[in-house]
Parts: sequence; C-alpha cells; structure tokens
Amino acid sequence: MQALIYHGPGQKKLEDRPRPVVQQPTDAVVRITLTTICGTDLHILKGDVPTCKPGTILGHEGVGVVDAVGPGVTTFKPGDRVLISCISACGRCEACRKGMTSHCSTGGWILGNSIDGTQAEYVRIPHADTSLHPIPAGADEEALVMLSDILPTGFECGVLNGKVQPGGTVAIVGAGPIGLAALLTAQLYSPAEIIMIDLDDKRLAVGKRFGASAVINSAGGQAAAEVMRLTGGRGVDTAIEAVGIPATFELCQEIVAAGGTIANVGVHGVKADLHLEKLWSHNITITTRLVDTVSTPMLLRTLQAGRIDAKQLITHRFKLADMLQAYETFGHAADTGALKVIIQA
Amino acid sequence: MQALIYHGPGQKKLEDRPRPVVQQPTDAVVRITLTTICGTDLHILKGDVPTCKPGTILGHEGVGVVDAVGPGVTTFKPGDRVLISCISACGRCEACRKGMTSHCSTGGWILGNSIDGTQAEYVRIPHADTSLHPIPAGADEEALVMLSDILPTGFECGVLNGKVQPGGTVAIVGAGPIGLAALLTAQLYSPAEIIMIDLDDKRLAVGKRFGASAVINSAGGQAAAEVMRLTGGRGVDTAIEAVGIPATFELCQEIVAAGGTIANVGVHGVKADLHLEKLWSHNITITTRLVDTVSTPMLLRTLQAGRIDAKQLITHRFKLADMLQAYETFGHAADTGALKVIIQA
Amino acid sequence: MQALIYHGPGQKKLEDRPRPVVQQPTDAVVRITLTTICGTDLHILKGDVPTCKPGTILGHEGVGVVDAVGPGVTTFKPGDRVLISCISACGRCEACRKGMTSHCSTGGWILGNSIDGTQAEYVRIPHADTSLHPIPAGADEEALVMLSDILPTGFECGVLNGKVQPGGTVAIVGAGPIGLAALLTAQLYSPAEIIMIDLDDKRLAVGKRFGASAVINSAGGQAAAEVMRLTGGRGVDTAIEAVGIPATFELCQEIVAAGGTIANVGVHGVKADLHLEKLWSHNITITTRLVDTVSTPMLLRTLQAGRIDAKQLITHRFKLADMLQAYETFGHAADTGALKVIIQA
Amino acid sequence: MQALIYHGPGQKKLEDRPRPVVQQPTDAVVRITLTTICGTDLHILKGDVPTCKPGTILGHEGVGVVDAVGPGVTTFKPGDRVLISCISACGRCEACRKGMTSHCSTGGWILGNSIDGTQAEYVRIPHADTSLHPIPAGADEEALVMLSDILPTGFECGVLNGKVQPGGTVAIVGAGPIGLAALLTAQLYSPAEIIMIDLDDKRLAVGKRFGASAVINSAGGQAAAEVMRLTGGRGVDTAIEAVGIPATFELCQEIVAAGGTIANVGVHGVKADLHLEKLWSHNITITTRLVDTVSTPMLLRTLQAGRIDAKQLITHRFKLADMLQAYETFGHAADTGALKVIIQA
Repeated sequence: MQALIYHGPGQKKLEDRPRPVVQQPTDAVVRITLTTICGTDLHILKGDVPTCKPGTILGHEGVGVVDAVGPGVTTFKPGDRVLISCISACGRCEACRKGMTSHCSTGGWILGNSIDGTQAEYVRIPHADTSLHPIPAGADEEALVMLSDILPTGFECGVLNGKVQPGGTVAIVGAGPIGLAALLTAQLYSPAEIIMIDLDDKRLAVGKRFGASAVINSAGGQAAAEVMRLTGGRGVDTAIEAVGIPATFELCQEIVAAGGTIANVGVHGVKADLHLEKLWSHNITITTRLVDTVSTPMLLRTLQAGRIDAKQLITHRFKLADMLQAYETFGHAADTGALKVIIQA
Repeated sequence: MQALIYHGPGQKKLEDRPRPVVQQPTDAVVRITLTTICGTDLHILKGDVPTCKPGTILGHEGVGVVDAVGPGVTTFKPGDRVLISCISACGRCEACRKGMTSHCSTGGWILGNSIDGTQAEYVRIPHADTSLHPIPAGADEEALVMLSDILPTGFECGVLNGKVQPGGTVAIVGAGPIGLAALLTAQLYSPAEIIMIDLDDKRLAVGKRFGASAVINSAGGQAAAEVMRLTGGRGVDTAIEAVGIPATFELCQEIVAAGGTIANVGVHGVKADLHLEKLWSHNITITTRLVDTVSTPMLLRTLQAGRIDAKQLITHRFKLADMLQAYETFGHAADTGALKVIIQA
Repeated sequence: MQALIYHGPGQKKLEDRPRPVVQQPTDAVVRITLTTICGTDLHILKGDVPTCKPGTILGHEGVGVVDAVGPGVTTFKPGDRVLISCISACGRCEACRKGMTSHCSTGGWILGNSIDGTQAEYVRIPHADTSLHPIPAGADEEALVMLSDILPTGFECGVLNGKVQPGGTVAIVGAGPIGLAALLTAQLYSPAEIIMIDLDDKRLAVGKRFGASAVINSAGGQAAAEVMRLTGGRGVDTAIEAVGIPATFELCQEIVAAGGTIANVGVHGVKADLHLEKLWSHNITITTRLVDTVSTPMLLRTLQAGRIDAKQLITHRFKLADMLQAYETFGHAADTGALKVIIQA
Repeated sequence: MQALIYHGPGQKKLEDRPRPVVQQPTDAVVRITLTTICGTDLHILKGDVPTCKPGTILGHEGVGVVDAVGPGVTTFKPGDRVLISCISACGRCEACRKGMTSHCSTGGWILGNSIDGTQAEYVRIPHADTSLHPIPAGADEEALVMLSDILPTGFECGVLNGKVQPGGTVAIVGAGPIGLAALLTAQLYSPAEIIMIDLDDKRLAVGKRFGASAVINSAGGQAAAEVMRLTGGRGVDTAIEAVGIPATFELCQEIVAAGGTIANVGVHGVKADLHLEKLWSHNITITTRLVDTVSTPMLLRTLQAGRIDAKQLITHRFKLADMLQAYETFGHAADTGALKVIIQA
C-alpha cells in the first residue's frame, strides 16, 4: 500500500509498504478513506519529536472502514465506518479510568508517532474498542476528519480547560487551525466576546468570518493594550494560547483578568517566564493539556445537530498519491491560506 | 491608644495614636482583644509592599469587641464579639458577588496596608457587615485569631485551589506557619499521603506532629527524587507552594503528577521559570490566589466541631506593650521556633 | 401616584397611593419607567400566596430611574437608570454569602408580595446596593424588563440546575413564558436537541420559532412515547418542568434518561408522586429552586452581546393607566397569545 | 464446587455445581477466598428482584485469586489476587465512558442477579479488566470485601451525591450496614455534624461508636423536630436516605435545609410522596444512584492509608459450608447484631 514515511528531519517520502495486520486481540485494521495533515506532523519533520523514529508512517487523523478486528474487539466489525481518534486509549489503566486517556499507560498519542499512522491506505489501531467511534448514517465524513484531533484539541485544551462560559470574555492568541478550532467550539458556550489575536491579517479575517467579535493584529506590540481597551481595563476571563512560544504565553499573562484562566494549547519547545511577582495575588489558573478526545462523542452529536460547521476549516483537497503536494500546501499556509487539507486515500 | 507603626523599611515603633472613629456609614470601630503578626508584616518592614506608606499601623488579624458602628451597619452592634477578616469586602461589587472578595473594588487586603491595621487597641473596619464574623458563645478566641488569615489562606489558596481529595497525594513545599496551616486544613479532605518538604528539620518535626505522613529535608537537593520514590514514580496530585521563591516553585513542577495541580500560596518577588517544554502535555493546573476569606464561616464551624486544632499553631504570647519583643521572636523563627505569636491588646 | 392594588382573592384596583419614601439607610426609591405582569401575580390574585396581604401593590419586575437613596447606599445615586431584581438581597446573611439570595434572611421574594411592588409609578427597593443593577448606556430597556425575573428564572432554575450542556438533549414541559425563557437561555449552551412539550399548538409554534428542535403536543397522552422515539429510547439528559402540576412532573420522570436531571421550575400547589420504585437505580437528579437572580449580570452581558433576543417574549404594550386591561390580556393568554406585556409607567 | 443457589422466593440451598469457565475473550474465572452477604440478597430471596431467576448462584461481593483469563484480558493473569466489584463494566459503552458503569449496556449489577455470583468456590467475571481490582501486597483482605459494594455504595450514593463537605451538617436515616458505610465514608470530608437516625438503639450505639456526633431514635415520631433543634432550625445540608421506604424518604424532606441535598441510597419498592408544594422554592437537590464503583481505587488507597477502618463493619465469620447459618445470622440482624458477615470459601 501507499504510505507517507518520515525519514528523519526534513525528509519524507511516499512509499510502498505492506498492509498492517492485527497484532493484539484488541487491535483493528482500518482502511483509510480520508485523512489530513496536522501541525504536529510538521513538528516531527523538523526533528522536534524524538519518540517518532525514521521509518514511521505519519498521521493521526482520519476516517475509514474497518477491515479486520482481533478476537478481543466487541464494538466493531469489518465493514463498519469509523472515526479514528488521535489518542489510543486502553480504557483500563488508571489514567483512562480518570478520563485522562492522553496518558494511557499503553496508548496516548502513539499513532504516527511511536507506531505507524494514518497517512496510508491502511492503519492498525490498538485498543480499537476505545479508540474508534462509529460514524452515524448520513454523516459528512470530511467534516468528521476534524473530530480526530483538531476540534477536540481546541475544545478540551482551550474551551473546557479555559472555562469559557455564557457572557464571558475570551481571547485566543493564534489564529491558525487550532486557534480557529478553539474559536468554533468556544461559541458552544455563548461567550459575550471572543477576541482573536494574530500577526496575519488573512487569518484574522478568517477568525472574523468564523465568529470572532474582535480581531487584533499583534504586529505592532499593542495587543495587550488593545485587549485592555476592549474589556474596559479588566482583561479577559479566558486567554487561550494557541501558538506555543514564550511571547504568546507571556501576552496571555498580560491580558488575563483577576480570577481568569490561561488555557495553554500550544506545543512548546522551550520554557517561558511566569510572572508570579505580579500574578501570585491575581487568583488566576493556568492549564496545560494533551487532548484526551473524551469529548468526541459530544462533538459528534453537536456536528450532527448543525451547531458547528466544521467543514469551514477545510481549504484544500488532495489524493493520497499527491501527498507531497498536500504537505507543500499545508506547510506554506501563509501563502496558500491553507487551514486543513483533506487527503483521499 | 498604643499602636505599632511602620516608619519605612526596617523601622517600626510602638506609639500613642488617637482612637479611630467611624468615617463611613458602613464602618465599625473594634476594640482589639487579641491580635498577631503575619509573615506579610515582615515583608512590609523589608520595604516590599509599596502600598503600605510610612505612618501606617500594621496588622490585619485579630478578634475584639465592637465599639461603635455607622448607620449603615445592620449585622453588628456595640458589645458584639467579632473575628476580623484580613480581607475587607463591600459585598456589592462585581468581584465580591463572584466570591473573589480579595479583589473587592473598595476593599481587599487594605488593613495594615493602605489603611491602619489591628496591631493597636482599636481599629476601624470598613464594610463591617461583610468583613467581620460573629464569635459563637464559648469559642476559644485565641484559636479564632488563626481564622483571620492563616487558616483561610492555607485552605483556600492551598487546599481548595489544589483540589485535595480523599485518597489523593499532597506535597507541601515549605513548613512555615502557612505551610502548616495548609497541612492542618488539607486533612479535612483525608488525602492518603501528605509529604512536607523544608530545609529545617525542626519545622519538619512539627509537620510530622501536625499530621504529615512523610517529611523530606530538601537541603541535599534530592527532594524531587524522594517524592518520586514515595509516590511510585507518579508524583503528587497536589503540590502546594508555600515559600514564594523560584526554586520551590520549580520543585513543584518536578513533582506534580500528570493531571495534578500546583497551588501557589507563597508571595513571590520575582518571576519563575515555567517549563512548558515539558508540562504542555502533562494536563496540569497551576493556580494563584490572594485569600478571599470566603471559607471563614465554614472553618469556624469546623473549629467549633473539633475537627481542626488551630491552637497548635500558637507558640508564644505577649502583651501589646511588648510588641517589639513579639516581632523579635516572630522574626527569628529559626532560633525561637515561633509559629504564631498571640498579642493581648 | 397610581398603583395596582391587590384587594384579596379575585380583586384588584388601580388606585392613588402616596409615593414611597426611604425607610432604611440601605433603601432606594425608584421611579418606574417600565414594568410587567408575571404568572405569579395571577397566583396571588387567586389567593394562593398567603404572604401577600390585601392592600399590597403588586409587581416585582421593572426598570426605572433612582429617585432617592438612603445614607447606606453607595453604588447608586439619584438619576441612575436601574434594572430591578425580583429578589431583594442583603448581601450579608449566610444565604446571600452562598449565592442563595432567594433565601436572604431579610429579603428574598418580597416585592409585590410582603411589601409594595413595582406596578406603580414609584417603588421602594430595600437593600438597594445588592438588589438593583445599573443599566448600560444604549441598552434596550424593554428587553431588560425580561431580566427582572423571567430570564434568570428560566436560566437558573431550568438551564443551570438542569445542567444543560453542549451536545445534550433537553425537554421543556410547558411552553408558557417561563418555559420559553428556559428555551431561549438553554441555547446559550448549544444542546443538540431541545424538545418543547405543551397542550397548545400556538405556543408550540412559538417554541419552534424560538429555537426548539422538535415540539410535541401532549394532548394525546403520547408525549413520553414520542420523546423516547426522538431520543432513540434513551430519554433526555435534562427535563425542565415549567408548569407546576403533578402530571407534568410525572411526565418528566418518564422521559429523563439514566444519569439525567429533572429541573423543576413550576410553582406547585400540591404534592406529586415520586416513582422511587423505578428511579432509585436510575442515577437521576431532581432540583428545585426559587430564582436567586445571581445570573443577572451575566445575562445582561449576553443580551448586550446579542446572544439572546429577549424582546421576542414581548407581545403587548400598555400604559399604567390601562393596567386592568393589561391584566385582562395577560390573564387570557390562550386567546390573546400574550407572553409578556410591557407596561409604561 | 459448592455454591449457594436461589430457588425462588424464600428458597435457597447450598449445592454442588460445575466450576465456571471462560466464555468470552474478556472473561476471567476467579477462585473465591472471601465473600459476604448483602441486604440485596435478602431482597432477592423475598422475590423482589425479577431479573434473578431460580437456579442462580447468589452473591456480588468478594475477593479471590484469578484462576483463568480469556485472550482479551490484559490486566490480570492467573495467580493475581483481586477484589471483585459488584458492578461489571465493559469500559466501552456510552454509560461506561461517562463513568456511569452501573448502566453499562452489557454489565451493571449482573453478578448474583442475571448471572451466577460469588457465593461459591469460583465465579466467572465478565469484562474482567474493568471489573476487578488488583489487591496491593500486604492488604487486609477481609477489609477489602467491604469495597466490593457497601463502602462504594455508601460513599457514591450517599456521600458524593449528598455533597458532604467540611463544616457541613449531615443526617443519615437508617443505621444498618449501608447507613454505617455512609457514616464511615462521610467522615472523609470532615463534616461538622453527623446525625444518625434509626428505630434501633443498638444500631444507634454502633453509629455513635463509628463517629456520629448525635443519634436520634425515631420511634417516638420526634426525629424531624429533634434534627431541627440540633441544627438551630436550619435543617441539614445533606440528608442520606438509607432505608428504602416512603416514611424515611419523607423524613428527609422534612429535615433538609434550603439549599441542601437528599441523597437516596435505599432500594425502594413503592413510590413516595414528594412535597413539591413546599419544596419547589427550597432550592434542594434529590439524587438517586445505583453504585458505579468508580470510587473503588480511591477507597482502596484510603483504606491502605488507614483513613477508614472498614473492618469495624464485620461482626461474624463463617465457612462457605455454613452458608445457611450465615444467612440466618445476617437475616436476623436485630437479634444477632450482625452488620457484615465474612464467608471463607
């Protein structure tokens, strides 16, 4: 089968590989119909993710059709249409029982990382019963690809952790795909204001279209002052960090109101300054989270009910055979305007 | 009346001052019977608290008897025995309605800071109806002095924010009075383990006596390794920072388990490093808080029911006339073993 | 001044009365600009509310302008435009400190009940600082009248107590004004389905227009079966009782899913059967609540942000001089289609 | 093997039966070392549980040693010492993912009910990975038998659902084994007062010994008045119903404070009156729950830490061969003083 292989920093190839097979009683093999590329795949290609070894098939998102199951799988059978979660969860360990499946003792984020992933014609899914979701009849499968990772990440790490509430004020720092996913899902809680902050006016225009009540280009260094102006000097109840660098995390510290929350979504490579000399008395909360995808069934119902239009995130479509071009488009988002690209396998 | 006056960094005197009077309709004047000294008073004397101007009477803790009330006070009348909260709360502003009285728009921590405090024979209490608590008949008033600040601070900033739960594991970094207050109140939730960490073996011995299940002297630089050993490599569910320096805050980052909480109680003078390059994916929560004293009525019931022995914190007793000696004793705690000192006014 | 007076069961008159004056330091007198009639006023007129004595001015909703304040009032001054809360709250007693202002020891629902109310040119408001809300510049004051009682009641007693969540399923039994207020505010949480149930097709049509995803006329006795059909046999996560009779409360018991919540909003005159022989093992929650109006500031922000269109509830407008006609219209809602009527004072 | 068989209402026998075998890939067979009898077993013997057919082996509690596992079991292997949960949970269905394992679509309370149970030498455990718990080295296995059902039931249905909090007031109606389990676990949250109510002075004496702050014999019909006297007219924050008849459920309605919670634990055979004509405005919560046993790992840590002395509940010990005598003793608790009886298999 065709598969996109990571060959070390800066190197990837579309190659022929043998089809995966069931290895454990709880495994399923899924034939991929649609997959996509994530910003994390670009991180791997930069060499930032040492758990991903050269030779690994990339990708942790997608939908498909069950091809085979092990004897311990009871929920799915060949032919079932399924949504693949980016998090593999055994459902049995202490972390899974707490709902913190991202820290499953034999799972977590392993697909396209420590084991082969979804940017291929077939993928082996460990712990299939608790890592796949049945696709309802009539669902739009392109929209569902957004439920593998990006929507639950924006929702769990940004919106839930950030305690977005009706009538509240929210700032989202970073208007890339993940910040926009936070923007879409934040609206499920009807905050009074959602301010998007980014350096790129084109992405801010997308934010405005997706429902932001205000947008701020932070290029001029006036973002914090502008947020204070928009909030009558209070700051925001929720600041969502969706970039992953010290500067944006520090901006969140400047704009969070007393009693508010900074919800970190970004993947950070270096430490940041925490201004405890100011914040120790500000009654704030800071959260970090690797997505658990425990909200996927809820988000699926929300999509089906028409409360979120997830397809807005899709800007380009490719065949698996054109995977390198898809990476090119996604990797130069500033020029191409790419948010999420759909790959037909 | 006699009062302890701050005269700028390093300078304090016991002087004669005029008795305070009711200034606003919602004020009360309270005759102090017992007061105490807080670590924050030492911070002021170091010059670390610019809102406290030379000439201010220090002190924000105490019990006493109502002497006079303004026409807007409905809950208290002269002769009532009252507990003074370190936080003055109007009960009307947005912050107070949320229960975040520490950020009251006309109150917060003002006693012995921006207005005259309790280390005197009399004190004026603004917003008296919502800043004093009636003392139940038969209560031990020395124990109640611990409810003005130290017990609610340990409880709200450490235990509640730290989400201490039955069966959980807790580490408290810092075995000074505030760390010990967190230790006493953490036991209200019956965690399975409470580990105290400090540099001073005498304070650790007190921690053991107050209910810690294990103690660690961090002098050797092995505290994090020892916590990991005691928790089977998991780390703790709750790490309470009760010192206020970067090193102890960073220790908390090393020992918090995935899914756990770092509850900051310490007063910090400088920023700290936040290791987001590790913690971004660890599903942790960090909280800061200036005490709101909203838990005082509950803690009062708990004391009355005998569930906390607050008097254990009291090590020395002085007359108001010997206030300078009381400061001497409290300020040299490493030698004197002082935790809380009671001052009879 | 003109005022609508309750003269015992079935009797009311528009009469001339002296203007109210400040009686307590914490009182304000407000000149009413807009008021309305509540279903509870009809209950009083039936003789169902013994705390309301003949001779009382009715009404507990409205907006106006502050005319005079007592010396203990610090938040408002004459000339301020204010929203009147149906609940008077001292902000000092144990209940108020918990946020359960409906059970304030010297307040609660007293306006137009145990003291004179708002269906008059002027009204005295006790505990003014904590019972009035400032009106933002530019606000639509007709819409704000909906915030005195009906929107916070639907939201707090129905939506918040009912734990409405994104992706959840909700049934609202009763499509009168209060059920419709629950419907409007439930949408702040983006549930997947909201099913309205009533006997009146006209009101159901309004429900559909206000955002219900399905409506059921319960006249045929098939409402429970129909809810089960719509929810794939699960029942609903949240059943909101907005009528106040045993039959509708029992219908909620039939349609609530395992793990779900029945949130009672209706005012009940008699006991109801609770089918514990079935429900003991169904992991359900039942809540009751007299509105606390603690959500009013949040709802006000939500209205200002355009997330709720409260004016949809207003069907008729009258002058205070035509108050009896307004009651006639509101009291015959089945014929007139009245939801909320606005009275200009 | 020996097993206690239900033969229809009023009839049970100790008989020889074939050993169970693994039927599904996710099954384990456990050799029982210790089991016990539950009040629910007596309900079955009265014919009150139609899902339990004649011929079924009774019992849903116990500890033992894994004898065999199916190919889908990954957490346990033969020889492992295990605690058996009374609830079988697949860990995969919608209910299990929510933590409401009592409503697992292929599990729930099935042991000793719809499938053979634990009052035997061996038992088959479906969904073994998510229905058994490993026993820590050195644990007291008799104490652990209390974790199969009675302690999690008292804790989850009574204490957690009842929102017992530090400083709160609790009444437990019914001082049988389950009421006492609620009493033991309520103390994990350090309420200020725990009032036990029962008709039997001997059980009340046990309650006093187990930590109740007050006891009331309700025989004289003055229980509600006495609770009101003890709580200064407020009523209790938490009323736990641990009997299962209308009279005790109605007593809970009389004694719950405004804002309080009635947590039903009792198994009810008939409906009860709910006095909504009084309670609609009292801001109360009523909960029901079949235990989910999701708290078992936490309770296990709590026991291991010495925070609960579960063995206090054990009053008698028998061999499996004397099972009928054990039932006799347990069934006549009023005479024998039996709480929990340990059966050695």
